[in-house]
Amino acid sequence: MGGHDAMPLDTLMNDAALSGYRINREPHYRAQGDEIAVFEAAWQRRMPLLLKGPTGCGKTRFVEHMAWRIGRPLITVSCHEDLTAGDLAGRWLLEDDSTRWQDGPLTLAARHGAICYLDEVVEARQDTTVLIHPLADTRRQFTLDRKGEVLTAHPDFMLIVSYNPGYQSLSKDLKTSTRQRFAAIDFDYLPPQQEAEVVAAESGVSPDMAQRLVALGTRTRRLRGQGLEEGASTRMLIHAGGLITGGIKPMLACRTAIAAPLADGDELRMALQQAIEASF
Amino acid sequence: MGGHDAMPLDTLMNDAALSGYRINREPHYRAQGDEIAVFEAAWQRRMPLLLKGPTGCGKTRFVEHMAWRIGRPLITVSCHEDLTAGDLAGRWLLEDDSTRWQDGPLTLAARHGAICYLDEVVEARQDTTVLIHPLADTRRQFTLDRKGEVLTAHPDFMLIVSYNPGYQSLSKDLKTSTRQRFAAIDFDYLPPQQEAEVVAAESGVSPDMAQRLVALGTRTRRLRGQGLEEGASTRMLIHAGGLITGGIKPMLACRTAIAAPLADGDELRMALQQAIEASF
Amino acid sequence: MGGHDAMPLDTLMNDAALSGYRINREPHYRAQGDEIAVFEAAWQRRMPLLLKGPTGCGKTRFVEHMAWRIGRPLITVSCHEDLTAGDLAGRWLLEDDSTRWQDGPLTLAARHGAICYLDEVVEARQDTTVLIHPLADTRRQFTLDRKGEVLTAHPDFMLIVSYNPGYQSLSKDLKTSTRQRFAAIDFDYLPPQQEAEVVAAESGVSPDMAQRLVALGTRTRRLRGQGLEEGASTRMLIHAGGLITGGIKPMLACRTAIAAPLADGDELRMALQQAIEASF
Amino acid sequence: MGGHDAMPLDTLMNDAALSGYRINREPHYRAQGDEIAVFEAAWQRRMPLLLKGPTGCGKTRFVEHMAWRIGRPLITVSCHEDLTAGDLAGRWLLEDDSTRWQDGPLTLAARHGAICYLDEVVEARQDTTVLIHPLADTRRQFTLDRKGEVLTAHPDFMLIVSYNPGYQSLSKDLKTSTRQRFAAIDFDYLPPQQEAEVVAAESGVSPDMAQRLVALGTRTRRLRGQGLEEGASTRMLIHAGGLITGGIKPMLACRTAIAAPLADGDELRMALQQAIEASF
Amino acid sequence: MGGHDAMPLDTLMNDAALSGYRINREPHYRAQGDEIAVFEAAWQRRMPLLLKGPTGCGKTRFVEHMAWRIGRPLITVSCHEDLTAGDLAGRWLLEDDSTRWQDGPLTLAARHGAICYLDEVVEARQDTTVLIHPLADTRRQFTLDRKGEVLTAHPDFMLIVSYNPGYQSLSKDLKTSTRQRFAAIDFDYLPPQQEAEVVAAESGVSPDMAQRLVALGTRTRRLRGQGLEEGASTRMLIHAGGLITGGIKPMLACRTAIAAPLADGDELRMALQQAIEASF
Amino acid sequence: MGGHDAMPLDTLMNDAALSGYRINREPHYRAQGDEIAVFEAAWQRRMPLLLKGPTGCGKTRFVEHMAWRIGRPLITVSCHEDLTAGDLAGRWLLEDDSTRWQDGPLTLAARHGAICYLDEVVEARQDTTVLIHPLADTRRQFTLDRKGEVLTAHPDFMLIVSYNPGYQSLSKDLKTSTRQRFAAIDFDYLPPQQEAEVVAAESGVSPDMAQRLVALGTRTRRLRGQGLEEGASTRMLIHAGGLITGGIKPMLACRTAIAAPLADGDELRMALQQAIEASF
Repeated sequence: MGGHDAMPLDTLMNDAALSGYRINREPHYRAQGDEIAVFEAAWQRRMPLLLKGPTGCGKTRFVEHMAWRIGRPLITVSCHEDLTAGDLAGRWLLEDDSTRWQDGPLTLAARHGAICYLDEVVEARQDTTVLIHPLADTRRQFTLDRKGEVLTAHPDFMLIVSYNPGYQSLSKDLKTSTRQRFAAIDFDYLPPQQEAEVVAAESGVSPDMAQRLVALGTRTRRLRGQGLEEGASTRMLIHAGGLITGGIKPMLACRTAIAAPLADGDELRMALQQAIEASF
Repeated sequence: MGGHDAMPLDTLMNDAALSGYRINREPHYRAQGDEIAVFEAAWQRRMPLLLKGPTGCGKTRFVEHMAWRIGRPLITVSCHEDLTAGDLAGRWLLEDDSTRWQDGPLTLAARHGAICYLDEVVEARQDTTVLIHPLADTRRQFTLDRKGEVLTAHPDFMLIVSYNPGYQSLSKDLKTSTRQRFAAIDFDYLPPQQEAEVVAAESGVSPDMAQRLVALGTRTRRLRGQGLEEGASTRMLIHAGGLITGGIKPMLACRTAIAAPLADGDELRMALQQAIEASF
Repeated sequence: MGGHDAMPLDTLMNDAALSGYRINREPHYRAQGDEIAVFEAAWQRRMPLLLKGPTGCGKTRFVEHMAWRIGRPLITVSCHEDLTAGDLAGRWLLEDDSTRWQDGPLTLAARHGAICYLDEVVEARQDTTVLIHPLADTRRQFTLDRKGEVLTAHPDFMLIVSYNPGYQSLSKDLKTSTRQRFAAIDFDYLPPQQEAEVVAAESGVSPDMAQRLVALGTRTRRLRGQGLEEGASTRMLIHAGGLITGGIKPMLACRTAIAAPLADGDELRMALQQAIEASF
Repeated sequence: MGGHDAMPLDTLMNDAALSGYRINREPHYRAQGDEIAVFEAAWQRRMPLLLKGPTGCGKTRFVEHMAWRIGRPLITVSCHEDLTAGDLAGRWLLEDDSTRWQDGPLTLAARHGAICYLDEVVEARQDTTVLIHPLADTRRQFTLDRKGEVLTAHPDFMLIVSYNPGYQSLSKDLKTSTRQRFAAIDFDYLPPQQEAEVVAAESGVSPDMAQRLVALGTRTRRLRGQGLEEGASTRMLIHAGGLITGGIKPMLACRTAIAAPLADGDELRMALQQAIEASF
Repeated sequence: MGGHDAMPLDTLMNDAALSGYRINREPHYRAQGDEIAVFEAAWQRRMPLLLKGPTGCGKTRFVEHMAWRIGRPLITVSCHEDLTAGDLAGRWLLEDDSTRWQDGPLTLAARHGAICYLDEVVEARQDTTVLIHPLADTRRQFTLDRKGEVLTAHPDFMLIVSYNPGYQSLSKDLKTSTRQRFAAIDFDYLPPQQEAEVVAAESGVSPDMAQRLVALGTRTRRLRGQGLEEGASTRMLIHAGGLITGGIKPMLACRTAIAAPLADGDELRMALQQAIEASF
Repeated sequence: MGGHDAMPLDTLMNDAALSGYRINREPHYRAQGDEIAVFEAAWQRRMPLLLKGPTGCGKTRFVEHMAWRIGRPLITVSCHEDLTAGDLAGRWLLEDDSTRWQDGPLTLAARHGAICYLDEVVEARQDTTVLIHPLADTRRQFTLDRKGEVLTAHPDFMLIVSYNPGYQSLSKDLKTSTRQRFAAIDFDYLPPQQEAEVVAAESGVSPDMAQRLVALGTRTRRLRGQGLEEGASTRMLIHAGGLITGGIKPMLACRTAIAAPLADGDELRMALQQAIEASF
């Protein structure tokens, strides 16, 4: 009630609400191409962004890095097929004989100016994707039906969604009316040399071992479509490296971190085992 | 408590309820044909209107413009397959040990004389479309079953729905008994010269660049049916222009704003890439 | 507590409950055949009635007219596939720390002697149609399970349902055990001369223009089965007439009020356009 | 607190609970065969009964008659596919800050010794039919899971279900484990002379007219399987007779009460029309 | 507050909770083979038991007999496809402004040391069968998620499930991971002489009549697979005997108690009728 | 309020919350290969682990052993297709006129540093598997949407899931984006000599009998794919041994503990019976 005079109570509460979503340390991110410049041009216009690419190639890390770079809080929602519009928008809670409105993650971001990142957006139900339409065009509004409130997004609100085209199926495709609202950035695995540097840095293995692991990763990615939905992600290579650092022999580490999680059937397992043996 | 004597409390509350839905500044709209005259003739008779056309061709903007023109508030509902009759009509909320009725957006519009715009109405569940039937014929009534109230619409209430015939499927078609209640206006993309003017005005690119973008848009629209559900909307061309204004090179801007969001597969992506290369 | 002595409080409350459902002015209705006599004979025995016929041919207007004629309130329910037995029968509401029973529309009608009209009854779920069985045979009772009450219908209660056989499908057929409980009246469009008089009266166009509109209506009805589920209803012809009265040219008015709402595909649209051109 | 001393409060409340279900006047019933004797032998052993036969052939009337004859209250439940176990067993209601258990119709009958009649039992969900298993074997018990009560049925409780084998389908068949618990009585339409007497008595037509109506009924029943799921029930013949008594000509009355409700398609309608013309 | 000193309040409450589930009189059971010895050996180790066999062959009676023999209360749950994990585990009830936990039948049995018998376990939903897994292996625990309690079963808790392999279908099969947790006892109908003794004892017919009824039962069981899912159970033979004792002629009694409940179609009905005629 | 000064109230409550999940005695576990070393290397990095293998081969026992070995509490959740995200994350409970948040098992483990073991994770719904994604990568966070809390996992939290590839089907497969987050350990049955030692120790049979039982187990496992989804688990062999110890003859014990639970059909049953006869 003294030094706070200059800041309305509402702002203080908003800051509190978002404080858990601020990114205080720079998340390490190695650019693959123009994506940082494109993001910044999109951010200037608060243009909604769609990040496309395989699992574990760095989309989430990129969003964290950019949120830190532009200094905005980041609210991430992992979408799934039971995610309802109410989960995103908010709901009434019963409290002490009365009801209290609780903003959902999307509302929180739109109201206070955070980045809202809907990870794997095609997994969500239709009502969720439709809910974001008026937020993703020039209106930048959405209606909290259950609260009777028309919310115009904060000037610093930005909407980002991710999508893995490799999983695309008839029932899990992005609607055209949704696609039309977004600009999109393509992601892929890092080039081998860069990927090896990341593997070495994060798992503690030697540069030589990291290169072998990346070579193995590349081999598994060639098996894609031959029973394998996706090859080993960078994350899996780091897992293998981490087990090696922890004293597990390289081939057992790769079997544990790559072959066993990826493959169930004998044939595919053997193909992965051969890729492992060829790498060490 | 003085100057307000002449206005009943109820009206003041209604005005408060609708105040968030008033459109205070003229939304820019460039007529494509007779649609303004047709809308005004329909408005004279409060005839329900169905707006048909592809995504992003200006249906929503037209409704906003007309709402401003006739001076009525506009309540927009983005329909989706989980939208229930209760979401439109209203519901009982628990409050301080008692229950309070909260009008849904359709009830709010019907009670106080706003335009209610149900965007992409075929996405809604059947109970929603049936709910609007008695509001969309000479009765202009609907029954709030859960409240036990028969509501006769305010004289200034008007019902507008939109529908994209391009997405029409067996399970997402408009019922004939619904169609029979509406007059309909067809929408399409703007003619090239007009579209270029809009792109230039909203993205800040030069007239020449705007024409190239529109030419690209036309090329993509010819790809419709060849793997593409719809070509680039005007909104996408503005996105591309905006990135260019922000310093991104034209071909990267078009890849980001048009090709990447529209296409997942290699073949379609290549066709779009060729369209881009042919445009710059 | 004075003049009301002769009327029990309960009756006063009932009258209040039904007052919104009374029809005070005669709804215009032009008989097509024996339907008024048949209705009156059915009414004498409180025989449940099924009204069959295409959308917009006057079934709802007929019910309103007859309700006015016999002087009973009319409670209309537009059925849809999410209509539950509870929506018709009633439910418990929480109120001031306690619960209060609220009669649904069917219970209200059965308890106080109104006509209950279930519009498009096949759209409702099975539990709804089964609920009306004991009300539609000699028992004239139904059990409010959730209230623990056996309700015997008021002597003036009458049950009417409507059904459009044109939409009949395996999953949306009326059960035989339901059909067996009803007498049925067939409805169709008015004869041309009568229909033209209605169109002129309700839209304000000249008799000549009304006849052209009706001729167009007849042409569209011949297209039924050729991609068109139903031809233009009288209501659509009135819409066209209303736009003409409002200053829109006849062919644009007919495209707006008839062709555009009925047809999405190019072929059907052209057939309707030809019917319009042949009419003016 | 005086004359009631001899009767415990609980019994008085039970009587009140069942009073709405008592049948005070003899329901007219004309036996078709041994069914009354079989019912009485089953009643002696409280053996569960299954009544099989077409719609409207008198199963419900038989149960009402027998309930009156043996002097037990009758609780009828029309089954449907949304009928849950909770609808039959009972539920907790919120009341004045607390919850109160409300017996469902089956519990009410089992607790106080009424006949419980589940009409069209195959329409109900599986949980409902399984719920009655322990009540329909020597245990004569059922567990109110949600109340934590094991209820042993009153000695006068009897369970009766009905079933129309004509509608039998894979998904709506009676489970063998349910069938094994019941003895069954077959029902069919009355012999012509008896049926004519019923039609004359209930509709007020002359004996000659009643015989013509029954002859028509028999003709329609021969059409079964030729597009008609079932022929005209006795109830429909009474409807036709009632319209005739009310001044409607016989052929119009039969079209209204029989042909129009039973048939939608032209072919079947014509067959019924010929049957009507052959009858008058 | 005196003699109860030695018994903690909790135990007294438990005893009250289970008192309704105690079996005070010996249920008559005639062993078919080694099942009593096998049960007792399983009981020594509290090994979960699966009882397999046709409907009405005595599985439930066997469990009641064994519960009486080992002196433990028996809690029976008839499974069905809407039985949820919450129905078995328990739920929170609202009571006097607060919530009270109510143990479900499985929790009640596990907490206080009763036998829990899940009748026709394959009818239940997957979450139910998975819920019993940790109770059916060496852990003998289960987690009441909604209560936040890890419950270790009482030393006297035993789990028994039943299963009719005759109904086995793809969607209603017991999961292998469930089967692996149980030892199983096979049940079948009694040998003819023993079955006749039971029929005579329970229905009151003469030994000769009982043998004829059993001979009929055997004939019907040979029809299994020829349109009949299962032949007449012992219970059905007792029903037929009971009707005979009540004065109904044998062939009518058998038609009522056996042929009519088992068969809908003409062919199967005739086969059963011939079996009846061959028996008397 | 004295000796507790050094320990914040929160910690005391946490300890209480987890106390039921501590494993106080060493669970017997016989290593099959490198799994203990691999687990410990994974634990050093808190790497999420996926345990793959057939039912009853010791995955659960392994987790219990390792939880005891590293001294962390273990919270096990048996997944099933009705398990929702709310079941894992937690929910609001109504309590004394207010609402209280109750952590679900996953939240409990993540907040206080327990191992969370999701048994048969593919049985769970998609929202559950997606919920664990941010907990299973470098973020080690998850958002309690309904509570508005971003929870960063306790440094000692570890996530383990199990999966039986033998049951793999299209609708019950682990998503690639989930697989990519885990390292995996393969499990299989113990080698014969070790398995016999376990059977003897846990059932009390002689070493010779234990070897015969294991030989029988091996024979049944060869039948896999020939109608049998899986052969007898070690647990089933212990069951058979336990019945033998309890006085049941070996062949009856094996029929009861192995053949009867595994097989319904005659052919498979005979094959198992032959395997039993070949073993004794």
